[in-house]
Amino acid sequence: MTMYDILNKKKHGEELTAAEIRFFVEGYTKGSIPDYQASAFTMAVCLKGMTAAETAALTEAMAHSGDTVDLSCFGTLSADKHSTGGVGDKTSLIVAPIVAALGGKVTKMSGRGLGHTGGTVDKLESIPDFRTTLTSTEFLRQVETVGMAVIGQSGDLAPADKKLYALRDVTATVDSIPLIASSIMSKKLAAGSQNIVLDVKVGSGAFMKTPEDAADLADEMVRIGKLCGRRMAALITDMNAPLGCAVGNAVEIQEAIGVLRGDVHGDLRTVCVALAAQMLTLIFGWEESEAEARVNTVLQDGTALAKMREWVVAQGGDGRYIDDPTLFHRAAHSFTVPAPDDGYIAAMDTEAIGRVAVLLGAGRENKEDTIDHGAGILLQKKSGDAVQKGDPLCILLTERAEILPEAAELYVKALTFTETPPPVRPLIHQTLH
Amino acid sequence: MTMYDILNKKKHGEELTAAEIRFFVEGYTKGSIPDYQASAFTMAVCLKGMTAAETAALTEAMAHSGDTVDLSCFGTLSADKHSTGGVGDKTSLIVAPIVAALGGKVTKMSGRGLGHTGGTVDKLESIPDFRTTLTSTEFLRQVETVGMAVIGQSGDLAPADKKLYALRDVTATVDSIPLIASSIMSKKLAAGSQNIVLDVKVGSGAFMKTPEDAADLADEMVRIGKLCGRRMAALITDMNAPLGCAVGNAVEIQEAIGVLRGDVHGDLRTVCVALAAQMLTLIFGWEESEAEARVNTVLQDGTALAKMREWVVAQGGDGRYIDDPTLFHRAAHSFTVPAPDDGYIAAMDTEAIGRVAVLLGAGRENKEDTIDHGAGILLQKKSGDAVQKGDPLCILLTERAEILPEAAELYVKALTFTETPPPVRPLIHQTLH
Repeated sequence: MTMYDILNKKKHGEELTAAEIRFFVEGYTKGSIPDYQASAFTMAVCLKGMTAAETAALTEAMAHSGDTVDLSCFGTLSADKHSTGGVGDKTSLIVAPIVAALGGKVTKMSGRGLGHTGGTVDKLESIPDFRTTLTSTEFLRQVETVGMAVIGQSGDLAPADKKLYALRDVTATVDSIPLIASSIMSKKLAAGSQNIVLDVKVGSGAFMKTPEDAADLADEMVRIGKLCGRRMAALITDMNAPLGCAVGNAVEIQEAIGVLRGDVHGDLRTVCVALAAQMLTLIFGWEESEAEARVNTVLQDGTALAKMREWVVAQGGDGRYIDDPTLFHRAAHSFTVPAPDDGYIAAMDTEAIGRVAVLLGAGRENKEDTIDHGAGILLQKKSGDAVQKGDPLCILLTERAEILPEAAELYVKALTFTETPPPVRPLIHQTLH
Repeated sequence: MTMYDILNKKKHGEELTAAEIRFFVEGYTKGSIPDYQASAFTMAVCLKGMTAAETAALTEAMAHSGDTVDLSCFGTLSADKHSTGGVGDKTSLIVAPIVAALGGKVTKMSGRGLGHTGGTVDKLESIPDFRTTLTSTEFLRQVETVGMAVIGQSGDLAPADKKLYALRDVTATVDSIPLIASSIMSKKLAAGSQNIVLDVKVGSGAFMKTPEDAADLADEMVRIGKLCGRRMAALITDMNAPLGCAVGNAVEIQEAIGVLRGDVHGDLRTVCVALAAQMLTLIFGWEESEAEARVNTVLQDGTALAKMREWVVAQGGDGRYIDDPTLFHRAAHSFTVPAPDDGYIAAMDTEAIGRVAVLLGAGRENKEDTIDHGAGILLQKKSGDAVQKGDPLCILLTERAEILPEAAELYVKALTFTETPPPVRPLIHQTLH
């Protein structure tokens, strides 16, 4: 077997065997297959696609390219949730305590933010002394006692995916559904949970721009997970506007606490309830309506909020911040962006809004950048809302006063205004099992 | 401009600008664009193709990536001939003296053999003391005085092509007409001749397996050459059997001398007359019929043979070998392969026959291998011929007596026998201008 023959087969659109795909993944991981053959491979996959069997084989090979987490001590209770990334997406911070409060064992490894999307680990670091790194023993013990843990991604999970993703990133071969699906699912499989709920974002702030593409990706990931013996569900949710009203780090933690306290309603709460209900349905086999009712109960009676506090304290964080979210540090400078005219917000370029947050200091342009946890955006109006000239559109928070004029201008540019109300877009497009 | 954006455009099937293609070629040549981006590019080109304008831009950029030969001192008389490679293809050795004898200035840089195809430089080294390396001054002076020179390829012509070809060779991205056409034509443009005749081989011993593919490649190359101001013609000739009856090195020189002496007729002579006539038509604007008549004259009156002797002596070779070809060294062992049955030779796997020649010692498996100039094959029967059981099919010549049984078996396996005469195949499929 040679990489040349594998490339030649793929180029001619022939189906590769699982053994050929393993040969590639193992060889690439250990360095016997060079980058230039791997990039020719990913380009051929972008243009010729992969069958379901090929994608599953690629995912399994990458999942087994490094360490795997053994969660067998939790039986069928282990649960994980993955979002394909968006702006203002703090659902993990809400969903995990809900599910843990109801008896699930939520084990989550999260990433840092890069470009226009934020990262759960960055957000959690807004809480003083919160530890996003635990030893394997600490991690398992906390999941056992608290019911949940959220940590940064370990360097040893799916190293093949890490290496291949870095290569795809510089060879314009990221946007291929089999490659995206296998990349995400290889990490999820290696992370060990039995129940996996995917939140596939679609819209102007998401990687997937159409519901059809999002459904194809979700379908592929659900199928891979099931082929590998996991219980799977996927929601396709809207990312044509930031989720909720806070974009940043501390402000997103505050908003998450607001949902758990019962203060915050709207799109964020709706998506969180749906995601939590899907996780519980997978774990316990409950009917969706029953699961939703139980989720609403733990949101109303304070159990979910108490679970969040317990979790934050378990990972070293200062619990007082959960009790009193006004304690969170807020950036020194704020600026309220006024509406330029009367009308309706018909559309928001959500990716552009994410980039405004980066400009304010809330995210990273490059991996090495540091972030200001107190920077961000508080949305005052969202898609569909009527505005009058001068109404506050949002509040910008930053330590960098000098960039406020530019940030305000970019924010307004990211909005499309119309004279008549725009059609209402669905928040949850589809649920796949 | 970034290579990422160029890759992304090509992947989506958009046309690249000449500036983008130059950016790639220049960056790749100097090393600022890494192999892994270049291989993603060649794979995308294999699968998405290139427009005529893109292919011309790629060719020009590669042609200008290193040294170029200045043949302006020969005005419009400079002429070059290129074959896409085959088995038993010794046409350059015959065509160049004919054209030089008639006033053309033939400047040819040839390669060495690799795999199943032989190389002109290897064949010429069968002549004792023949020098295949000349300084630039020697080269130009010889072309001026003798009318021709044939030397090995210089390392500085089209280095971008050299680097890219090596990469394509290990990433299964060789078989793309725009990439093949630009690779060949970049070297031809850099080599400087005003008149270029291409011999595109088609059939079992050629890279192009169908006349349609060969015509596409020829078309592309003719168009590129014309766009760059050269006078172009291309012949599509049959390579479903070795050309002529000798496959090897010394045996091919002997056969070439035979054509120039007027002793050898058949397919080899026919193709040589057609190629030479096309070159003369380009150089002097003669009618094809007039050009062919003049070619036949210099073959009959000994002028072309005398020109070959003059050329060989000018490059240091022993002229007595041209006068008496029996002087050439012949390998120690010979074996006559008998026909296994009565019938007709319906087809010859010409690539397989080329590999038998390599096995006998006449070619190279790897670039580092040395060759036996006296080894080779003398065909006694070719496609279409009737044979009776025991008739000699060919004579194998080698220094390696121990491989004769295997070589004979492989040779017979390369032939397809039928009971009825096969249809006659055209020798020259098409001439393109």
